[in-house]
Amino acid sequence: MLMAGVYSYLPLGLKVLNNIERIIRQEMDSCGASQVLLPALQPLELWQRSGRDKDIGEVMIRFVDRRGRNAVLGPTHEEVITELVKSHISSYRQLPLILYQIQTKFRDEIRPRFGLVRACEFIMKDAYSFDRDEEGLDKNYQAMHQAYNRIFKRCGLEILTTEADPGVMGGKVSHEFMVPAESGEDLVAVCPKCKFAKTFDESKKESCPKCKVGLEKINTIEVGHIFKLGTKYSAVLGADFLDQKGKQSPIVMGCYGIGVSRLISAAVEQNHDEEGIIWPSQIAPYQVLVLPLDVTDNKLMQLALDIYNQLQDNGIQVLLDDRDERAGVKFKDADLIGVPISIVVGQRSLSEKKVEIKTRRDKQTLSLNKEDILQELRRKIA
Amino acid sequence: MLMAGVYSYLPLGLKVLNNIERIIRQEMDSCGASQVLLPALQPLELWQRSGRDKDIGEVMIRFVDRRGRNAVLGPTHEEVITELVKSHISSYRQLPLILYQIQTKFRDEIRPRFGLVRACEFIMKDAYSFDRDEEGLDKNYQAMHQAYNRIFKRCGLEILTTEADPGVMGGKVSHEFMVPAESGEDLVAVCPKCKFAKTFDESKKESCPKCKVGLEKINTIEVGHIFKLGTKYSAVLGADFLDQKGKQSPIVMGCYGIGVSRLISAAVEQNHDEEGIIWPSQIAPYQVLVLPLDVTDNKLMQLALDIYNQLQDNGIQVLLDDRDERAGVKFKDADLIGVPISIVVGQRSLSEKKVEIKTRRDKQTLSLNKEDILQELRRKIA
Repeated sequence: MLMAGVYSYLPLGLKVLNNIERIIRQEMDSCGASQVLLPALQPLELWQRSGRDKDIGEVMIRFVDRRGRNAVLGPTHEEVITELVKSHISSYRQLPLILYQIQTKFRDEIRPRFGLVRACEFIMKDAYSFDRDEEGLDKNYQAMHQAYNRIFKRCGLEILTTEADPGVMGGKVSHEFMVPAESGEDLVAVCPKCKFAKTFDESKKESCPKCKVGLEKINTIEVGHIFKLGTKYSAVLGADFLDQKGKQSPIVMGCYGIGVSRLISAAVEQNHDEEGIIWPSQIAPYQVLVLPLDVTDNKLMQLALDIYNQLQDNGIQVLLDDRDERAGVKFKDADLIGVPISIVVGQRSLSEKKVEIKTRRDKQTLSLNKEDILQELRRKIA
Repeated sequence: MLMAGVYSYLPLGLKVLNNIERIIRQEMDSCGASQVLLPALQPLELWQRSGRDKDIGEVMIRFVDRRGRNAVLGPTHEEVITELVKSHISSYRQLPLILYQIQTKFRDEIRPRFGLVRACEFIMKDAYSFDRDEEGLDKNYQAMHQAYNRIFKRCGLEILTTEADPGVMGGKVSHEFMVPAESGEDLVAVCPKCKFAKTFDESKKESCPKCKVGLEKINTIEVGHIFKLGTKYSAVLGADFLDQKGKQSPIVMGCYGIGVSRLISAAVEQNHDEEGIIWPSQIAPYQVLVLPLDVTDNKLMQLALDIYNQLQDNGIQVLLDDRDERAGVKFKDADLIGVPISIVVGQRSLSEKKVEIKTRRDKQTLSLNKEDILQELRRKIA
């Protein structure tokens, strides 16, 4: 933490962040979305045109630059992307289109807290769909909804999906993706039987529309939010297209956000024990840790290095703990940083050619011949 | 351009940016550097402690947040990284250490211009080395200097290296990496024989210390700058370590910057002709463009798709121009976007099983059997 709500990523955390970004890119690309990168600095005038400079209030950081221009740090990018698309799209033949970015956002939070959950500077994936009509929007909205389910699953997260109030974003329909977590600030009412979920509302007696049982109140972290914006932004900013009949119409839009840095906190919340973090395989900073018990023993160290090199050559992200520390310290640190699989190289590895494979989550240990390591790891990681 | 000095990256430009970032990461990692990510938001108080809040002047964007905190948008990160290292490093055994980040920086430029060359929001790679003594710093400085030469070469850039004034950054020794370019703002005096170069100084009659001939004045773009900072930041911010003898000393630092987004402009400046860009192979948004001359011909289109899929399966970044446009339009656009190699699929490809391989840089065309494409491309791309 550099100041309240502002954090640095150290090497292990940054690797987790990069893994999450890679998963998001793969799933966005599979929806036919193209990646762009929009600026954080934006002219205030653009927000005045959409009318959101007032709606969004003080959470938007504003300043006047040396040339007297009123500028803001974008807390979100609907206006900017609409302007961009307006200058590039004019015909129905160029639609549908999905653009996304993974970018740093800034918000002047009055009470920044919970580390990466409510930060003043954070990383978001925001995607925007552009369609000819509502039918096209429905299709893209569905595709993105499914991509979100795949993303959160690959990140090792169990999520609840709720219908939500679009709020300042606008539009009629929106869904939120919530991670149950004790430290979460968002209250959700969930059916204990079918996992139907909705935003908790104190004033309403709530029960499951399907199972007819009472809903339970739980704490969650919001990690994603998708919106059918319709023509809210395109109409007011003049982002039109010519349809098949030569008629000018505003482009029909959707927007789709994921709190990328927040996902890290959510993943840790759902995947830890008293000893530390248990990283889900696909986002772990390393998939395997090689842990030689005595680094002063040259033969043992050479064996550890051989294993390390073999795994690295086979595309496995592997870390070698070559510190001259006691075994107990190394085991404790291994549990703390939460690499899913450790390979322990000790005296038995030399005398019997065996290594121990330890799984962080279930703490199971498996004794294995050196030759069988790669096959077993591939089975475990897959 | 969203506002003066503020730009969006569209998909092709972003791919170039990502390729440059990949090259930088590979070369930094090969120096044993670890990647981190530091925040853009910083407390003004930190800059007051180093005394640079005054030195850096109005180019640093400042604002007061809702809680009354004086915050700035970091134009550079010496203070932040020194604070970070101070809280993690205490012993000589933890040194040397190199950390780097690729991150968005903000500067309130009074005259933003030349697109990505002098922007208010831009992407930088900044690395920082931490050593026990001057000898360690010299070694890391040399290693980074060599890594810079490799990075610029892989980006397709010819560079000149000049000894430079450290300026507001501090320290005694610094070198700049300059790309000769007509639009460049920085004047360099260069020896026409041995390419010795130094910052141009109107007041001095300059000649090459080695060849004794007069230096020529040329325009350049600065793409990199490295500094031996010494203990300027560590001494004032209290980043000390205990040496072998148990003595407390300030850590000896170096810092190493590359203007990542600016590299794109420099690469275009050095690699273009009247028709458009000629991307150097390693940073090209795509290495190969498959160009079917008639997309309404199913057989021809199937052949183009087969080639496209074969290349993609072999890890070549390939783009298919499947637009229903005239051949002339497609050729013109191919030249404009500058993909290094085009594969033209026309009627002859069906009748004689031949395709034409066109090289963007030298405009040479080669007629080739379909089966030989992959081998020829591997030769050309390598």
